[in-house]
Amino acid sequence: MPARLILALALLCSFALSQAQPAKNTAERLGYPAGTKLLIIHADDLAVSHSQDQASFNALDRHAATAASIMVPCPWLTEVAGYAHSHPDADLGLHLTLTSEWASYRWGPVASRNEVPGLLGPDGNLWPDVLPVTRHATAAEVEKEIRAQIERALKVGIHPTHLDSHMGTLFTPAFFPAYIKVAREYHLPFLASRTQAAPPALLSLLKENDILPDSIVMATGGKPETWASYYAGLVGALKPGLTEMIVHLAYDDAEMQAVTVDHPDYGSAWRQRDFNVITSPEFQKALRENGVTLIGWKTIGEHTNPKR
Amino acid sequence: MPARLILALALLCSFALSQAQPAKNTAERLGYPAGTKLLIIHADDLAVSHSQDQASFNALDRHAATAASIMVPCPWLTEVAGYAHSHPDADLGLHLTLTSEWASYRWGPVASRNEVPGLLGPDGNLWPDVLPVTRHATAAEVEKEIRAQIERALKVGIHPTHLDSHMGTLFTPAFFPAYIKVAREYHLPFLASRTQAAPPALLSLLKENDILPDSIVMATGGKPETWASYYAGLVGALKPGLTEMIVHLAYDDAEMQAVTVDHPDYGSAWRQRDFNVITSPEFQKALRENGVTLIGWKTIGEHTNPKR
Repeated sequence: MPARLILALALLCSFALSQAQPAKNTAERLGYPAGTKLLIIHADDLAVSHSQDQASFNALDRHAATAASIMVPCPWLTEVAGYAHSHPDADLGLHLTLTSEWASYRWGPVASRNEVPGLLGPDGNLWPDVLPVTRHATAAEVEKEIRAQIERALKVGIHPTHLDSHMGTLFTPAFFPAYIKVAREYHLPFLASRTQAAPPALLSLLKENDILPDSIVMATGGKPETWASYYAGLVGALKPGLTEMIVHLAYDDAEMQAVTVDHPDYGSAWRQRDFNVITSPEFQKALRENGVTLIGWKTIGEHTNPKR
Repeated sequence: MPARLILALALLCSFALSQAQPAKNTAERLGYPAGTKLLIIHADDLAVSHSQDQASFNALDRHAATAASIMVPCPWLTEVAGYAHSHPDADLGLHLTLTSEWASYRWGPVASRNEVPGLLGPDGNLWPDVLPVTRHATAAEVEKEIRAQIERALKVGIHPTHLDSHMGTLFTPAFFPAYIKVAREYHLPFLASRTQAAPPALLSLLKENDILPDSIVMATGGKPETWASYYAGLVGALKPGLTEMIVHLAYDDAEMQAVTVDHPDYGSAWRQRDFNVITSPEFQKALRENGVTLIGWKTIGEHTNPKR
């Protein structure tokens, strides 16, 4: 398991709601019977590459993925905006991005560079990992950048259904308040996780009526030959309530291999495997046999902000 | 011929040296006999896509291209920097970039956005064509941006051999002075063309000891089946002195097709054709049979700044 993933998952799981859990479970709050196993199959990282965009659009079109999120600072944003325009029902959120993690292919901030100097690595682009962001950037810079990303998305005609955080940078204690603050201002549901082990100052930012996944699952490695059985296992283990399954989709082609060069974790072949599994008849059969109900973030948004 | 190319070529050809031509011809000034047909085969547009980078590196490696120039604001800059590091003899200049011309794949400035507002289109990236740049940007903004591009290149370990201008934006009267000023400050040779029809204010910026190509040629369209014969014709028509042949190289793959979507001029197949022709045995044979001597911009730099 790559270090950055461990960090992201640990942070994602470190936020708890200090007050008692709501009386209704998440399925009920979303209008389903309490025993319903709700699942969002969520494609991360749109706009990074054409390969990722095409695989994700394909999965969204065939309802193999039910939602996705977009990395606004990345070069292919306009391609995603075109898809959003021609697919107004697509459930597309923003994968707020404070890192540029690949070796040979990089992007900078949306905000003016001189306004967010702490977000910039030596080459003037975003830092390649979460840790240097937390060391160098201020919460004010982060807030400025994520506001700029949302405004840029709106400007190009994307109306996001939700917010989440690339590589979990916004789940770190220093930046989580800015994330929640901005999400509430834009009336957007956001990804976070309720557990029982987070600082009270952060816990207090979550409200009882925030609808969050009860569980977040994603592939963290393993052998290619067990990829399908790993996902089948996740589906078999789903519990009543809401789970988000995060997938990373792309075609294993020359572009994607070059973007992810020297980095097999979340690499080109990895993403092709994710695509192959979730679009496979076997996976679709497992969802049916386990009585899984697929939803997207739009449903959460409707129940979070019923008057929108 | 696309409008933007006509504009670029017209501008490129509109600069003349008001004083008498130097007594020696360009070949002699570069240390060759007066009758030598010197040719730079120059690959434009590195760093835009992996496809363009790989085709250009391939052509440089096999000496089918003798020089190339890099678009610093583009996402694959680090890939090119890696090539420059592992190929210290590669003749790489900067293709100073003030436009972002593709529909689904875009880039912004290197300078802080709030310092170069006139360079930005509605989506916060560079304008898609030359005309809006000339309408909205000031010379001061252009100078700031091209300085930022040179500094960024140096920062990532690229030591440019020369400067030229993507889509010819810097050959427009309003911006040409900034281009020349910055080139002189960095002691870099630059692409421009001597003719007899430019405003005196611009002509006065060129010095007698500037070594510039006597002729600049490139493909401007035509049928795929006549691509090779077109280039053979260019080679057959070379005259003594220095010619720069500009080529646009890429592999016709999914990435390149997506970058250049809906734009056959300078599109994916066009660039593959350029690659196929200049790397072909027939083209190499034509160069030999016509007694062509290939050089790069390094040679010009050495003769322009003999003490560097």
